[in-house]
Amino acid sequence: MDEFEVIRRYFQDLTPSDTSVALGIGDDCCLLNPEPGRQLAMSTDTLLAGRHFLASQDAADIAYKSLAVSLSDLAAMGARPRWFSLALTLPKVEEAWLEKFALGLAECAQRFAVSLVGGDTTRGPLAVTINIIGSVVPGQASRRDGAKPGDLICVTGTLGDAALALSLIREKSGRKPVESAQLAFLESRLHRPTPRLEEGLALAAFASAAIDLSDGLAGDLGHVLRQSRCGALLYEQSFPQSPAFSALTREDQRTAMQTRGGDDYELCICLPRKHFDSALALCPCGLSIVGEIEAEAGLRLQTATGDKIALPAHGYRHFE
Amino acid sequence: MDEFEVIRRYFQDLTPSDTSVALGIGDDCCLLNPEPGRQLAMSTDTLLAGRHFLASQDAADIAYKSLAVSLSDLAAMGARPRWFSLALTLPKVEEAWLEKFALGLAECAQRFAVSLVGGDTTRGPLAVTINIIGSVVPGQASRRDGAKPGDLICVTGTLGDAALALSLIREKSGRKPVESAQLAFLESRLHRPTPRLEEGLALAAFASAAIDLSDGLAGDLGHVLRQSRCGALLYEQSFPQSPAFSALTREDQRTAMQTRGGDDYELCICLPRKHFDSALALCPCGLSIVGEIEAEAGLRLQTATGDKIALPAHGYRHFE
Repeated sequence: MDEFEVIRRYFQDLTPSDTSVALGIGDDCCLLNPEPGRQLAMSTDTLLAGRHFLASQDAADIAYKSLAVSLSDLAAMGARPRWFSLALTLPKVEEAWLEKFALGLAECAQRFAVSLVGGDTTRGPLAVTINIIGSVVPGQASRRDGAKPGDLICVTGTLGDAALALSLIREKSGRKPVESAQLAFLESRLHRPTPRLEEGLALAAFASAAIDLSDGLAGDLGHVLRQSRCGALLYEQSFPQSPAFSALTREDQRTAMQTRGGDDYELCICLPRKHFDSALALCPCGLSIVGEIEAEAGLRLQTATGDKIALPAHGYRHFE
Repeated sequence: MDEFEVIRRYFQDLTPSDTSVALGIGDDCCLLNPEPGRQLAMSTDTLLAGRHFLASQDAADIAYKSLAVSLSDLAAMGARPRWFSLALTLPKVEEAWLEKFALGLAECAQRFAVSLVGGDTTRGPLAVTINIIGSVVPGQASRRDGAKPGDLICVTGTLGDAALALSLIREKSGRKPVESAQLAFLESRLHRPTPRLEEGLALAAFASAAIDLSDGLAGDLGHVLRQSRCGALLYEQSFPQSPAFSALTREDQRTAMQTRGGDDYELCICLPRKHFDSALALCPCGLSIVGEIEAEAGLRLQTATGDKIALPAHGYRHFE
């Protein structure tokens, strides 16, 4: 099967009836009709086997997560998803694997109303690159550079679930016995993260700055602080925990998983205190205050005992 | 150096002052202002070390070609280049290599007036994925599905130069002595192809169908024939040759290199005969009639002796 047959068989039908797509997969380019009066928000992410996922992982999960991670970037900007392209590098063509991959991709694409419009397939080490495009009202996107001293730092949902799932998978045995429902919850947080699109869209009206949490709160917040030229204090005891996370971690494990674990795909939003109640009401997944922006550069952590300690503002490093 | 420093140091300055870019590299997404009343044309291409280029190749050439190949897809549609994103996977961060890569990318981007607006860097086997976006007047893009029996099949420039360059590099010794100027010309055709953007834009007014030649004339024309539901006859003696190609090939080598060699990055345009003179006048790089569209399905070659033989309508196969 050559690359054209791969595209035709597994991906061509993934372009739903979307009037914004004038020409979909199968030509030199796709042709798209942007909405009048909107800006485009665009992001690119590569996920590699052995680095971002295991090659042995379920192909549907690999596809779902690859797209969800890209959607999460749109969520951070408060953009509405429109179209994506897929560059898929495969060691060989296995029909069963590709069928599952296409199903997982379709599931995520349909759930979040985004259309596959193009891509490329090549033979090589397993890798998935997605380029995603959303639309946003000019001037209303949430950027990284607007945080101000006094702003609250908030996160959606809970932190640390994906890091815990990964640690349980690696250890193959938790310290405490793991219930299957808890494990299923944690694994779904790792393998099928939910991009906070509705929340991102709603919060853009209040946010002074926003970012999605892919590399861990400390690292990702660090980008906001650098670009907003300010610092922050995080409250160690305020990090939101899922019941499974609380049940399966010791207290001394939690801060590392919740600030450096990565793969949360929650939103970190900075906003003036007066907007918090309105913002909270727009977040069915929850919105927790985890700290505040300070004028002094650097990232600090206020511990349970009230001490303030410096927290290195970086997360997962790709080239270390 | 982590991925953020890689992006900052080598790629952030590659976004020139382009008023269509409201926010460039460095946030969750870039923000772009599309031109009112235009469609977007978008294409994705992955180039892999060991498959599309050698890892030992000059990094500036790798970057230049990666972008040129994507621009060639825009040329085929008659689209004007606007923005591109770069997903770069690297085994390790070598500053000298990255500097050269960024230079080659900037050279190509500036020459063809396209802005780098985003991307991702990851650690893994060397691979370059470019997602490129151009703009086109609605309804004026050249597609693959409009060829009609009786249309002329034309190609810009010359065919087979890149295939010959590759064969000379692999053999390290040609059958005939190779002059350095000839070799330099052929290598530039292989490593720094010229996307036929002006020609593509000008020819869109006359073309019934168009495609760019990446996998060889036979394979790429095959896509046009399938999508236009027709066949074609190619004239073996009409394939345009560069002086270096003529000088360095035997007659019996030429057809294979010119129909299956790949990497030509010329345009193949189908158009009604009455428009040929106007079209030719718009192509400083030359425009040659190489065959005609026929109602009967399949691809045929009329040889020098006047025989007609069947020609398999496929080119380079990625998954064989």
